[in-house]
Amino acid sequence: MRTLKLTIAYDGTRYAGWQVQRPKSIVPSPQSTEKPTIQGALQEVLQQILREPVTVVGSGRTDAGVHALGQVAHVKTCSSMPVLRLQRALNALLRSDITVTRLEEAPETFHAQRHAVSKRYRYTIVTAPAVLPFERATVHHVWGRLDVSRMRREAQVLTGRHDFRAFCASGSSALQVGTTKTTVRTLSDVQVRRHRDRVVMEFEGDGFLYKMVRGIAGTLIGVGRGRLPTGTMERILRTKDRRLVGPTAPARGLILLNVRYKPV
Amino acid sequence: MRTLKLTIAYDGTRYAGWQVQRPKSIVPSPQSTEKPTIQGALQEVLQQILREPVTVVGSGRTDAGVHALGQVAHVKTCSSMPVLRLQRALNALLRSDITVTRLEEAPETFHAQRHAVSKRYRYTIVTAPAVLPFERATVHHVWGRLDVSRMRREAQVLTGRHDFRAFCASGSSALQVGTTKTTVRTLSDVQVRRHRDRVVMEFEGDGFLYKMVRGIAGTLIGVGRGRLPTGTMERILRTKDRRLVGPTAPARGLILLNVRYKPV
Repeated sequence: MRTLKLTIAYDGTRYAGWQVQRPKSIVPSPQSTEKPTIQGALQEVLQQILREPVTVVGSGRTDAGVHALGQVAHVKTCSSMPVLRLQRALNALLRSDITVTRLEEAPETFHAQRHAVSKRYRYTIVTAPAVLPFERATVHHVWGRLDVSRMRREAQVLTGRHDFRAFCASGSSALQVGTTKTTVRTLSDVQVRRHRDRVVMEFEGDGFLYKMVRGIAGTLIGVGRGRLPTGTMERILRTKDRRLVGPTAPARGLILLNVRYKPV
Repeated sequence: MRTLKLTIAYDGTRYAGWQVQRPKSIVPSPQSTEKPTIQGALQEVLQQILREPVTVVGSGRTDAGVHALGQVAHVKTCSSMPVLRLQRALNALLRSDITVTRLEEAPETFHAQRHAVSKRYRYTIVTAPAVLPFERATVHHVWGRLDVSRMRREAQVLTGRHDFRAFCASGSSALQVGTTKTTVRTLSDVQVRRHRDRVVMEFEGDGFLYKMVRGIAGTLIGVGRGRLPTGTMERILRTKDRRLVGPTAPARGLILLNVRYKPV
């Protein structure tokens, strides 16, 4: 049995997210049955090529509409097909909004989810009067001015180990009763930068709760627009009060940049 | 009467090119009646907003499927609507694959086509095993190796004043009998660069014939792949023999970067 490591880029626009089945949540998402998922699309094409049942295990899920540049997954297969041939076959059969950018042999015990050490997400906002056609699917257009230095100061308190419970959307598996899952995460790096007409926020951490990045981004946007007071972020982390969190920022601005693993 | 200068970005994928009507050609293009054009889309929306007949005059046309980052056009209008309001209205009504990135007052005599001094085009090739989903509409995917230094040497002879007749597709207005139009153009800058898995070619000149850039790009690709001999480009310019030209490179890799005008 071989274990293969896949690095995957996707435009999440038309997908219900990464995961084939939503984790047990109190209210089942109606869209999950309508739109395809990235995991589902990959499994279907892999099974077509390898002619055996295949489970694609991702580093974690991404929400509906969220993109990835370097999502990582693993599959186990009995096939002896060379990796380059398999990668070409995959990309030939996949729709052009999903691309396997790397396919490599991994140690047999490699597990894309359990062995992930950190993930890095980027949220991109355009404040220009108009969004370029080429980026319309991957940025969030915000009208008017954003006070970026205020956003940066606000974001500083995020770095480190915190209970991000307030940013945790209902339905998140981390909130299930009877599990040992925690809402404590460690962010190792948080960046808020302006490049001309765009504001780019990056978040690196050992894990992210469901919709956590979009909740943080929405709160920072609220502060940048002056709709939320200075100190909101600190107050959210301290009180864990979901009502203080800004509106969840749209999925299209979010991209999973990479997933890091311990060097083998 | 005001003259307004528009700077326009577009994803040309679903358009039959810039121009509403193809110039008189021997064989009318069948697709021109099926797909919309950029000029047509702009005129329609402008007329809807300004409630007067409007003609959008572009710096020149772009072919079906070709993109633009900085196409320039002018319109004359009796309306006194402020430019920022008009730009917002335009972008709100246009499909998201066309964006007016700038809208400004111009001298009443400004003419987007006649006063254009130079244009710069970029042709982008990806040689990676797979194209990223986010760029699939705007790059040409070439399998296998490209000898970029060979392409660069070949491209050097293009700079300067030449008769580009060999690159001129049939049906080009420049070849019409009885006109004074010439196939002589001056290229002021030609660049061929590699950035990791991509090869970027840029061409700046006082004008370009119909499909000229794509003919040049196709020939350079042929040389880079070793399918066309060294010296092909020099031979084409000297003999003006169309049969030496490589296959026209696909439209999706081409983008009009900017149009320059004399400072007023």
